[in-house]
Amino acid sequence: MVKGQSIGCQTPEECVVQFRVRYSETDQMGTFYNSRALEWFECGRTELLRSLRLPYAEMEKRGVFLPVIEAHVEYRSRARYDDLLHMTSRGSLVGKARLRVDVDIVQSNGGAPVACGYTIHAVTDPTGKPIRPPPWLAELFANGVNDERRR
Amino acid sequence: MVKGQSIGCQTPEECVVQFRVRYSETDQMGTFYNSRALEWFECGRTELLRSLRLPYAEMEKRGVFLPVIEAHVEYRSRARYDDLLHMTSRGSLVGKARLRVDVDIVQSNGGAPVACGYTIHAVTDPTGKPIRPPPWLAELFANGVNDERRR
Amino acid sequence: MVKGQSIGCQTPEECVVQFRVRYSETDQMGTFYNSRALEWFECGRTELLRSLRLPYAEMEKRGVFLPVIEAHVEYRSRARYDDLLHMTSRGSLVGKARLRVDVDIVQSNGGAPVACGYTIHAVTDPTGKPIRPPPWLAELFANGVNDERRR
Amino acid sequence: MVKGQSIGCQTPEECVVQFRVRYSETDQMGTFYNSRALEWFECGRTELLRSLRLPYAEMEKRGVFLPVIEAHVEYRSRARYDDLLHMTSRGSLVGKARLRVDVDIVQSNGGAPVACGYTIHAVTDPTGKPIRPPPWLAELFANGVNDERRR
Repeated sequence: MVKGQSIGCQTPEECVVQFRVRYSETDQMGTFYNSRALEWFECGRTELLRSLRLPYAEMEKRGVFLPVIEAHVEYRSRARYDDLLHMTSRGSLVGKARLRVDVDIVQSNGGAPVACGYTIHAVTDPTGKPIRPPPWLAELFANGVNDERRR
Repeated sequence: MVKGQSIGCQTPEECVVQFRVRYSETDQMGTFYNSRALEWFECGRTELLRSLRLPYAEMEKRGVFLPVIEAHVEYRSRARYDDLLHMTSRGSLVGKARLRVDVDIVQSNGGAPVACGYTIHAVTDPTGKPIRPPPWLAELFANGVNDERRR
Repeated sequence: MVKGQSIGCQTPEECVVQFRVRYSETDQMGTFYNSRALEWFECGRTELLRSLRLPYAEMEKRGVFLPVIEAHVEYRSRARYDDLLHMTSRGSLVGKARLRVDVDIVQSNGGAPVACGYTIHAVTDPTGKPIRPPPWLAELFANGVNDERRR
Repeated sequence: MVKGQSIGCQTPEECVVQFRVRYSETDQMGTFYNSRALEWFECGRTELLRSLRLPYAEMEKRGVFLPVIEAHVEYRSRARYDDLLHMTSRGSLVGKARLRVDVDIVQSNGGAPVACGYTIHAVTDPTGKPIRPPPWLAELFANGVNDERRR
């Protein structure tokens, strides 16, 4: 069994995670409930940051928070309980003080698109006040800005 | 105590619901976790449809489903456990076969904006196959199409 | 619409709340997912404490936390999306330093039992260290100890 | 990264899964919200059944459902966002028509106990009507009945 397992996370350009749809994530339509996509996106960000040697738990200890200020999801086709999904996350800085993570989720078997979208994050101190991204954060994602890659 | 209570839902133009942030909806940042907004949006849709005398449970019994195909949320400011929130939902048809619901959530006390966004819904049969909205659905929302009201 | 509404919360003996099953709380079996019961129990506790003029948010500000240390649920019969449920919560002190809340959930229409159970809570400071219940907490629930009322 | 990964699931006696606490699973106390334990228990059952070559999705296709009729959780110590947890699930038949799964969750690093408990499941047809466990189900767990192993 492989419920969640990164299978290649070396650069801000692309971090891939595999996971299975939990029973608790389904609804009476028989597929995953729409809000679960945002919970999965967050798992993708967690692994993206870990792969960059900046685990988010560590960032919060340094006093840097990345609250979501915008989220967008497009639902492409159904995924059911226990389906194995393949999620690709890509990070980039937007303007001077925001992080954007683009996400694509497809079926691991066959590659059918399931959902895609993005989240945009402020960079704040622990009180929620916006701050400039620290240099170690800015450097990581600087080369990630590459507009034509985005929908 | 008023945990959820509609306080005016007469037309597709505007249905208002009040509810409180649950403890289970917070995260370690001390505010509501981002995906909860989509769960609240769904509560707003439920009450919007009920107020139009088309409870969604009834629609599904008639074989008409409204799966979310797109969702968008903008997070404006913090809301904490037990905060009383005021959510306004407005429905309209988009093109020939899609329903759009715009949502605004503000603090009941003071009116500070918390989150806003929209969901777009396909109209499908029980197997997920798109269908034309039945006349009783189309008529309800026909007058709701009014682009300048939207962000 | 009445999504959540207390309909009688005067004593630790009995606080009643009404609410509807959310679509997000269903699973592919067509009924509410089992863990949602614990989220509902928490809504009952919130209203129980509010009705006693000790809102839990206020308690946490005073430095008193009530983390769950034990939870038990028995599932009696199905409840579906949009079903209106009637939840009764009763609080009592257990021993010198624990709070117990017993919960019963039934269908508002007809009274069919849906789920029942209890949670047991430690009384702690903000770091999670057990403390003696402050007098204002102990007094409230002192008369609630009444073993024969419990399953 | 290892978000969820079984590390040994050969018998009904013991199936081990590793996973990380998701950000969405925390609450404002800074630890996982209590109901998440029941969602994790379900992940353990999923992998237990898969390891026995009876994936639950397959069982439902055969018309056999295992709704939870009782759940019990004891919370031992805190687990925080991104903590790596180690969950052991053990299945056994109870009486003639019920399945019991005992679960222990500990920190992967150091082994501190996090939560333990059990779920009891009816064996039903798709309408929720109790049935006798089919022979292929009964045989699997027959040897799992071993009372002294349980709390």
